[in-house]
Amino acid sequence: MDYNVLAPDRDRIASDIGELASTFVEGAQPGWTRRVFSDAYIASRAWTLSKMREAGLETRIDPAGNVVGILPGRNRSAKPLMTGSHTDTVHGGGRFDGIVGVVGAIETVRRLKETGTRLERDLVIVDFLGEEANPFGVSCVGSRSIAGLLDVEHLDRTDEDGVRLADAMVRAGLDPHEALSQAWKPGSLHGYVELHVEQGPVLEKSGAAIGVVTAIAGIERLLATFTGRADHAGTMPMDMRHDALAAAAASVVVVEREGCGAPVHGVSTVGRIESGPGSFNVVPDNARFWAEMRSTEADWLTGAKRRVAESIGIEASNRGVDLVVEWLNDQAPVRAHEKIQDTIARAADDLSFDWEAIPSGAGHDAAHLAHLGPMGMIFVPSISGRSHCPEEKSDFAQIAQGVHVLTTTLLHMDRTPAVRPSA
Amino acid sequence: MDYNVLAPDRDRIASDIGELASTFVEGAQPGWTRRVFSDAYIASRAWTLSKMREAGLETRIDPAGNVVGILPGRNRSAKPLMTGSHTDTVHGGGRFDGIVGVVGAIETVRRLKETGTRLERDLVIVDFLGEEANPFGVSCVGSRSIAGLLDVEHLDRTDEDGVRLADAMVRAGLDPHEALSQAWKPGSLHGYVELHVEQGPVLEKSGAAIGVVTAIAGIERLLATFTGRADHAGTMPMDMRHDALAAAAASVVVVEREGCGAPVHGVSTVGRIESGPGSFNVVPDNARFWAEMRSTEADWLTGAKRRVAESIGIEASNRGVDLVVEWLNDQAPVRAHEKIQDTIARAADDLSFDWEAIPSGAGHDAAHLAHLGPMGMIFVPSISGRSHCPEEKSDFAQIAQGVHVLTTTLLHMDRTPAVRPSA
Repeated sequence: MDYNVLAPDRDRIASDIGELASTFVEGAQPGWTRRVFSDAYIASRAWTLSKMREAGLETRIDPAGNVVGILPGRNRSAKPLMTGSHTDTVHGGGRFDGIVGVVGAIETVRRLKETGTRLERDLVIVDFLGEEANPFGVSCVGSRSIAGLLDVEHLDRTDEDGVRLADAMVRAGLDPHEALSQAWKPGSLHGYVELHVEQGPVLEKSGAAIGVVTAIAGIERLLATFTGRADHAGTMPMDMRHDALAAAAASVVVVEREGCGAPVHGVSTVGRIESGPGSFNVVPDNARFWAEMRSTEADWLTGAKRRVAESIGIEASNRGVDLVVEWLNDQAPVRAHEKIQDTIARAADDLSFDWEAIPSGAGHDAAHLAHLGPMGMIFVPSISGRSHCPEEKSDFAQIAQGVHVLTTTLLHMDRTPAVRPSA
Repeated sequence: MDYNVLAPDRDRIASDIGELASTFVEGAQPGWTRRVFSDAYIASRAWTLSKMREAGLETRIDPAGNVVGILPGRNRSAKPLMTGSHTDTVHGGGRFDGIVGVVGAIETVRRLKETGTRLERDLVIVDFLGEEANPFGVSCVGSRSIAGLLDVEHLDRTDEDGVRLADAMVRAGLDPHEALSQAWKPGSLHGYVELHVEQGPVLEKSGAAIGVVTAIAGIERLLATFTGRADHAGTMPMDMRHDALAAAAASVVVVEREGCGAPVHGVSTVGRIESGPGSFNVVPDNARFWAEMRSTEADWLTGAKRRVAESIGIEASNRGVDLVVEWLNDQAPVRAHEKIQDTIARAADDLSFDWEAIPSGAGHDAAHLAHLGPMGMIFVPSISGRSHCPEEKSDFAQIAQGVHVLTTTLLHMDRTPAVRPSA
C-alpha cells in the first residue's frame, strides 16, 4: 500500500488547533489556559464531541468526562485499537501539549474515511479528561478511570478550598461513582498509541522529525527539611555553626550532580527552596527544598534515591544540621512495548521520515493505558524544547508528519496479531 | 593601688539587670523585647536616668535621646573619658546585650564613689539611643549623633508604615534637628571604652574571663539575583538547562567556603534564599539570595568581595544563567586602639583574670565613638555563644569581673597622657 495517500491535511489540523485555542481559553489567565473543570474547558468538550461527530464517529462522553469516538471496524468483536490524548492545559500553558494528539486522532479518522481505508478493528479515539496536574493532586483523571487506576482515595482529595474531586466532577455533570467502575479489562486493547509534542529539545537538536518513545519516565519526589541553629552571623565562627541553609544549598548541588552524572536517561531538579528566619545577620536555622528525580530506568531511579539521601545526609551532618527526608510520591517507569516501537519506526521508514528513539521525561495518559494493552508513543519536535508556557510551539508541517505516522502505525497495528503486553 | 577594693557588687548588678528586664519589656512580644521608640523603651529611659542620679551623676537626656551622666573629675578642662552602651534590644532579644555595659558603667561610678576614688578627668556615661537594627535601617542612632555620623539622609529614612525616623524621634520627645548638630569634636575624648557581652562562643570555648577586643568587623552585604529559563523538569536534559536555583545554591556554597577559608577573622553568611516559580516539575528560572561577609581585616574583606563575585559569576555562567550582584552597603572595620587594648589587658592582669584578644564580629556603638578618640572594648563570655534570642545569657560572676576590668581600665586611662587616635 502507498501510505502517502493517507497524508493528512495540514491546514485542517492548523485550523482545528487554532479554533480550540482562540475560542476556549480562560480569558483572565496568561497564555492559552484551559484547566480541567474551568468553564472554558467544559465548553470545549462539546467542540471536541462535534468534531468527532463530523468525522463520522460514534460518540459519547463517559462517566469520567472522557470524550470518546469510535470508528467501527469490519470485525467488531476483535480487540479495538485506541489513540488519543488530552485538551486541558496547565495554567499559562500552550496550544500544542495534548491537543496535537486529539486533533491528530480526529484527522486520522478523516483521512481513513476520505481514502476509503477500512480497518479490521474498531478504532477508539479519546480526549481524556484532566491529564495535567490539578489542585486536587490527581493527574490523568480520565485515563486512570478507563485503565482502572482511579480509586476512592483520589476522589476524596480536595483542592485549596476544600472541594473534593468527586464534588468537582458532579458539578461538571460527571458521575464519579461510575468513573470508578467503568474500567476496561486489562488485555482488552489490541494496542494504544498516542501522538504528542516532545516538550523537550532533543528531536530539534538531532534534526529527526519523529520520536519513537522508548519509555515514560518514573518519578521520585522528595521534601528535604533541614534544622540547624540560629546564631549571630557576625559572632559565630564558621566552624561552630549549624547553618541549615548552607546544608540545604550543598544538597541542591548534590541533587543537580546526580542528574548530570546519570549514565542512562535521568534528570533531577530542585524546584523550590525556602529558608528562615531570613535576616542578613542571622545564621538560618531552617531550610527546605522540594526535588524530583526522573528516569526511564527503574534501577537508576532506585540507586539515585539511595545516593541522594546518603549524600545530603552527609552535607547535613557535616554542618551539625538535622535532616528529615520525606519521599512524597513515586511512579514507576513505563516501557513502551517493543513491538509498537518497531511498528512506529517502520511507519516512519515507510514515509521516509527521520526518526529517533527517545525517552519521555514527562508523564502521559499513555502510561495508564499501558495497563490495558501494548502501548507506544509518537513524538513530534517542540521548538526550542519549550512547553507548559505560552511560547510552546511545534511546526505544523512536522505535526502533520506526526499525524501521518500515527495513521500509518494504526494501519500496521490493525493488521498484526495481538502481542503480549510487556512486563 | 590595690585594684581589688574596686570589685563591684555582683548582686547589685544582677538586681539592676533583673529590674530592667522585669519592668520594661514589650509584653506582647517574645523574649525580653525592648525596641527603640516602643513604650517600654521610652519608659525605661527614666529608669536609667534615675539610676545615674542615684549614683550621684550630673544627668541629662540629649537631643538624640541618649541618657548621659557625668562624674566630674578634678580637672574639668581635661579631655573626658567615656563609657557606655545601650539598653534597647532586638525583637525577641535577651537581657544582656548592651545592658551589661550600661549597668556596668553605673556600677563603676558607684564603686569609685564608695571607695573615695577620685578621677582626674570627667567620666561620661552614656546609654546610647537605639543601637540595634530598626525598621528605619539606621542602627546606633545615639552614638552616631554624638560622633557626628548622623545625617539628614538617615533622618529621612522611613519604616514600613512610611514614618520618617525624624518623625519617630519627635514623637518620642526628641529633637532631630539638634541631634544633627550636637556632635562632639573629633579628638575631644581622652578615650572611650565599652563593656559588652561577646555574643559568640569564643571566650567560653577558650576559658578566658575577659576578651580584649582587637577590632570591630567591617561588613559587605550583597543581593545576588539569578535569572535562568523555566523548562519542563522531566523533558529538559541536564546539559541544556538554565537552572537559576542550581546556580544560586552552588553560589551559597561559594560564600560559605569563603568564610571557612579565611586566614584571618572572617565570616560569611547567606541569610536568606528564594526561588521561583516554585513547582516540582519546573526548572526554576529565578533565584536570589542575601549574603554578608564580615572581617576585622579590610584587606581580606576587599579580597573576599572580589573572589565571591568572581566565583559566583562562574557558577552562573557555567549554567547559562544571568547574574546581577548588588553590593547593598558596607562598613569598614574599626580597629581598637592598641594603647587601649594594652590598658585593658594590663587591668585584667592586675586582677589576675585570664584574658584573650578577640575580634568583634558584631557592630557596636564603640565603632562610632572611635571617631572622637582612642577606643577599646571589653568582652565577657556569652553562655553557648547565644545572642539576640531569649536564651542569651552571661554568668553574673563573669559580668562582675568585666565591670571590675572596666573600672580598673578607666583608672589607668585617667592617669595616662593622651594618645594619638589610630589611623
